[in-house]
Amino acid sequence: MINIGIVGFGTVGTGVVKILTRNKEMLQKKIGAEIDIKKIVDKDIESPREIEVPSALLTTDIGEVLNNQEINLVVELIGGYEPARSIVLTAIRKGKHVVTANKAMLAKYWRDILLTAQASKVEVQFEASVGGGIPIIQSIISGLSGNRILSIFGIINGTCNYILTKMSEENREFKEVLDEAKKNGYAEKDPTFDIEGIDTAHKISILSSLAFNSHIKVEDIYREGIIQITPQDISYAKEEFGYVIKLLGIAKTVNGRKDVRVHPTMIPETHLLASVGGVYNAIYVIGDSVGPLLFYGQGAGEMAAGSAVVSDIVRVARKIVDGSAGLNPTFLYPEEEVELKSIDEVNSKYYIRFSALDQPGVLAAISGILGKRDISIASVIQKGRREGDIVPIVMLTHEACEKNMRRALQEIDALPVVKAKSVVIRVEELA
Amino acid sequence: MINIGIVGFGTVGTGVVKILTRNKEMLQKKIGAEIDIKKIVDKDIESPREIEVPSALLTTDIGEVLNNQEINLVVELIGGYEPARSIVLTAIRKGKHVVTANKAMLAKYWRDILLTAQASKVEVQFEASVGGGIPIIQSIISGLSGNRILSIFGIINGTCNYILTKMSEENREFKEVLDEAKKNGYAEKDPTFDIEGIDTAHKISILSSLAFNSHIKVEDIYREGIIQITPQDISYAKEEFGYVIKLLGIAKTVNGRKDVRVHPTMIPETHLLASVGGVYNAIYVIGDSVGPLLFYGQGAGEMAAGSAVVSDIVRVARKIVDGSAGLNPTFLYPEEEVELKSIDEVNSKYYIRFSALDQPGVLAAISGILGKRDISIASVIQKGRREGDIVPIVMLTHEACEKNMRRALQEIDALPVVKAKSVVIRVEELA
Repeated sequence: MINIGIVGFGTVGTGVVKILTRNKEMLQKKIGAEIDIKKIVDKDIESPREIEVPSALLTTDIGEVLNNQEINLVVELIGGYEPARSIVLTAIRKGKHVVTANKAMLAKYWRDILLTAQASKVEVQFEASVGGGIPIIQSIISGLSGNRILSIFGIINGTCNYILTKMSEENREFKEVLDEAKKNGYAEKDPTFDIEGIDTAHKISILSSLAFNSHIKVEDIYREGIIQITPQDISYAKEEFGYVIKLLGIAKTVNGRKDVRVHPTMIPETHLLASVGGVYNAIYVIGDSVGPLLFYGQGAGEMAAGSAVVSDIVRVARKIVDGSAGLNPTFLYPEEEVELKSIDEVNSKYYIRFSALDQPGVLAAISGILGKRDISIASVIQKGRREGDIVPIVMLTHEACEKNMRRALQEIDALPVVKAKSVVIRVEELA
Repeated sequence: MINIGIVGFGTVGTGVVKILTRNKEMLQKKIGAEIDIKKIVDKDIESPREIEVPSALLTTDIGEVLNNQEINLVVELIGGYEPARSIVLTAIRKGKHVVTANKAMLAKYWRDILLTAQASKVEVQFEASVGGGIPIIQSIISGLSGNRILSIFGIINGTCNYILTKMSEENREFKEVLDEAKKNGYAEKDPTFDIEGIDTAHKISILSSLAFNSHIKVEDIYREGIIQITPQDISYAKEEFGYVIKLLGIAKTVNGRKDVRVHPTMIPETHLLASVGGVYNAIYVIGDSVGPLLFYGQGAGEMAAGSAVVSDIVRVARKIVDGSAGLNPTFLYPEEEVELKSIDEVNSKYYIRFSALDQPGVLAAISGILGKRDISIASVIQKGRREGDIVPIVMLTHEACEKNMRRALQEIDALPVVKAKSVVIRVEELA
């Protein structure tokens, strides 16, 4: 008998209970044992849920899970740093296996949690922490185990992808689309974690920590959100250069060094990732043997995330049944030393939009500064033709060093003919 | 120590040896034990391979693997029914775990192999049998274990996808593109298994057997190849209706009944699957909880298939290390009774191209017959306008029953005004 305690009876918790109930018989056959929900803990056990559970199962007291000796598997679905971390660590130390969907906690306390689990010989599984129902965690751990992962490019925040898709399809401003997304439930009331790329950073921290076998700390990951993206840049990208703007979590190995970052990125519109619209997630992974792979699916929602949580429960349950649970964690084999490239050291192609006076010599001044910094221009488009107007000058560069780019932009933005801060968006060919 | 014997030193065998050699240290860390290649068997041990191995490893005698007590894992990569089946069954009976890439063997001898393995308490893993390096087998077995699989739509034959992509992009005839593909190594000298959909049927047999937890026999799977596809139909599909033609392996649950088939299929050009070009493979899976997922990657090639084989080796090796190998096979829990729908019972939308004399009353005659059989027309395009010419009449129907469609076509093709066998291609909205 697999006795589980569910901590957190919100959206994902409801999905998990639904799936465990609906597919009970199938799951029992797959596992060779029955899954029994012993307790469900939540602050709020009064509000009605979409699925009814016996009221004896519900409790507001976490002790009823942590101190229940019958419960051998704790499913943590409350999210956030605390009390999630304390609950998970206590469960682990008490020899209970853990399934969690908590990306923030994992990204921050990766070693703490995984090493404690290893020492306590219990399983920790977290498929739902990245990409909702997409089995990306297991694919990296197990499906691609023969590969060194060369790069990962992930659209892993549904809110941002929804907003960017809407802005692009309907040529609308960020703020307006965000407000609409809040109304429709596609964005939280406080959307900071999403639109500033923090959630994406948590997730790419987890993916890259697995891929590079080392804790890639969130605070070491360079991060930009999508607030500064305008419909103007979206439309130049598409119409002039054939690019689409996506918020990507990026993890790469370049000449043996690791490069992990989160920022809006222009990618070729013909690439599969560019077709990933709305709230969908997709992760493009390149392995040294397998080459490129794409994984696509729903990145959130009670049933999609619930599917991932249940797959973890089944995986742990099967190991409990065959006696191998906790014996051989599928990650965190002797860790590697990884020093991330700083953003200054990154090489990238760039899209730049300058706002400059339309007068003779402006282009020469700008391109002179770029040239001096070793930044070579791949193409330029200058719009508008009335002398004295402020016009956009849009450029695509060849690969250049970020440090040089920043210095060049500082100089350019200080030119008297340049009338607003230049907009810079990195370009990835994904090749 | 994990001692393996590799049977078959061709393309995939070479890839496997390359990966095991190149990533030896990493694999050892992941497994907690060393993988030692004890023997490599092939008919031909003289021809040079891209990777050098000590000649003492090479043998033409399968007995040196099967009778070697040290070898605990046999990697079967020779393909085909025999002697592959006998080798695999002998290895299993001798208590050796098996990793195989052999889709033909698995599709035909599914129960035989899996039940023998279960009885002998050994592992059989076969990630490379479908979709090359894409971890689709593990995803269905483990990543989606909480789901009832509602449908699978797979582009799982690279040769056919290459040919259809070329025909579409360059508006060329099947025969011509096939000949070129043979020259470029994208098609076998004898391409029958690919172009007649047999390979796709093997693969959808495996996927659907896993998804539906029952052996879906190849001989029960309705199958059409791509030989009859013309650039004309590809271009009507695209320009008139916005569809792309792909050879799909399809497995569905419709009102509790299973429907598994292989045939060229029109799918919306805006769907992600439609963007899967060239030799790439992709599998679109819909689960009852997770919703739709797409898995995309290289469906063949030494390193991609090698990657899948090595991931299986690692999975089995880790179980050998923790003592759980063979205890709890991850498939073939008590089997379900499945009776497939016959093709006659299938409901589908259809694209039909009639070749008829351009004269009054023809459309009325055709649509009359369709109407009588309950087939309702969604749109019609009649090309050409010179009375007496043979012109194409292209139609898209609403959902109709295949049996009715076949009867209607028989009647229509017998009309004196219809001058050639009508072309019918099924349409899937993938919704």
